[in-house]
Amino acid sequence: MNVERILHHFPLDPASRQARLALGEKRLAFTETVVRYWERPETLTALNPSGFTPVLVEGDLVLCEASAILGYLEEVHAEPPLMPQTPADRAETRRLINWFDRKFAFEAGDLLLHEKMEKRLHRLGAPDLANLRQGREGLRAHLAYIETLLAERDWLAGRRLTLADLAAAAHLSVIDYLGDVPWAAFPGAKTWYMKLKSRPSFRPLLADRWPGIPPARHYDDLDF
Amino acid sequence: MNVERILHHFPLDPASRQARLALGEKRLAFTETVVRYWERPETLTALNPSGFTPVLVEGDLVLCEASAILGYLEEVHAEPPLMPQTPADRAETRRLINWFDRKFAFEAGDLLLHEKMEKRLHRLGAPDLANLRQGREGLRAHLAYIETLLAERDWLAGRRLTLADLAAAAHLSVIDYLGDVPWAAFPGAKTWYMKLKSRPSFRPLLADRWPGIPPARHYDDLDF
Repeated sequence: MNVERILHHFPLDPASRQARLALGEKRLAFTETVVRYWERPETLTALNPSGFTPVLVEGDLVLCEASAILGYLEEVHAEPPLMPQTPADRAETRRLINWFDRKFAFEAGDLLLHEKMEKRLHRLGAPDLANLRQGREGLRAHLAYIETLLAERDWLAGRRLTLADLAAAAHLSVIDYLGDVPWAAFPGAKTWYMKLKSRPSFRPLLADRWPGIPPARHYDDLDF
Repeated sequence: MNVERILHHFPLDPASRQARLALGEKRLAFTETVVRYWERPETLTALNPSGFTPVLVEGDLVLCEASAILGYLEEVHAEPPLMPQTPADRAETRRLINWFDRKFAFEAGDLLLHEKMEKRLHRLGAPDLANLRQGREGLRAHLAYIETLLAERDWLAGRRLTLADLAAAAHLSVIDYLGDVPWAAFPGAKTWYMKLKSRPSFRPLLADRWPGIPPARHYDDLDF
């Protein structure tokens, strides 16, 4: 490898996980720098003025935000492709990435992550039960939607694994770390997630542990 | 034109405005269907289960969400290009789109739109002054960031107009409709916005009027 590649990320950040999964699928080696983004470290803000993770540094090139990293990887390291061939299928993939990054995050992920993760990281006290309930209801609605998609498709956006699967898995896997995904009630989504979980790209995510926030018992179990 | 093209949109929605500006730049004719998205009309949810605008229908093809529409237009109607040539410059464009869609919206746009637009649309009462103040402070920080970018570049992502400019202009133009952009304090940003405002693609946006929410006096003035 000629160029050193460094990913600045936070292990329980869904956007960071999308970048890690894409790098894994494309079998690109990289060094990790784990960032406590909520402390706004200078090493991060000097690279990315937004203060968000992930940031991928490749030699002189600084790639900020998951959308830029994933787009770049797809353009420069085309194999294996993580976007479909036709413009219409690519639009469907982008629709679903938006679905998880926006709608899933707003209706389920952000609520659960705030109550169960950020409050511990930032020492903000106990979770708010109404927010937890609302997040879990939102999560069930999204798992039901994933089941609807998978009733007609092998993967979320069609017949092949795409960035839409990586986006969904990145968001869900953090909630799964926290133990909140009711897999038993959604067997189609569970089968899809088992397939993802057993891919080599997923292995580093299953090894994540954050001090003070232990993972659910089944988190790294491939046969959960 | 062989295929009928219909855009389902809401005039004061920044995501919808990105689609309208891109269609305008590419000189693609389309019919409009104005959607009162907050009423969750069936015509919209039948096309897009997320219930969000914009949706572009081209013959049999249904394209949901701005990211999918803009990506599709760039792939299928390549001229004039709205993305730069090199992967690195494309990554910078995507970073900035993310900046405005996420960070600008979170720190400025969503607060101001909620207090000054959504509360009127949904009859939720008077604006909260603390939120307005916070939104206006966020807005000033973002205008300062735009000035920093433009000190070294003709357009936000480099030497040419890109989707990053359309994203920023879409978000800012809705705030400008509401009269909240302190242009005089940010002359570099103002010059950039004047250039955008005078483009033919912008003209339909300047003609927007929503009942009960009149635009600021200077909104459609090219020499504001």
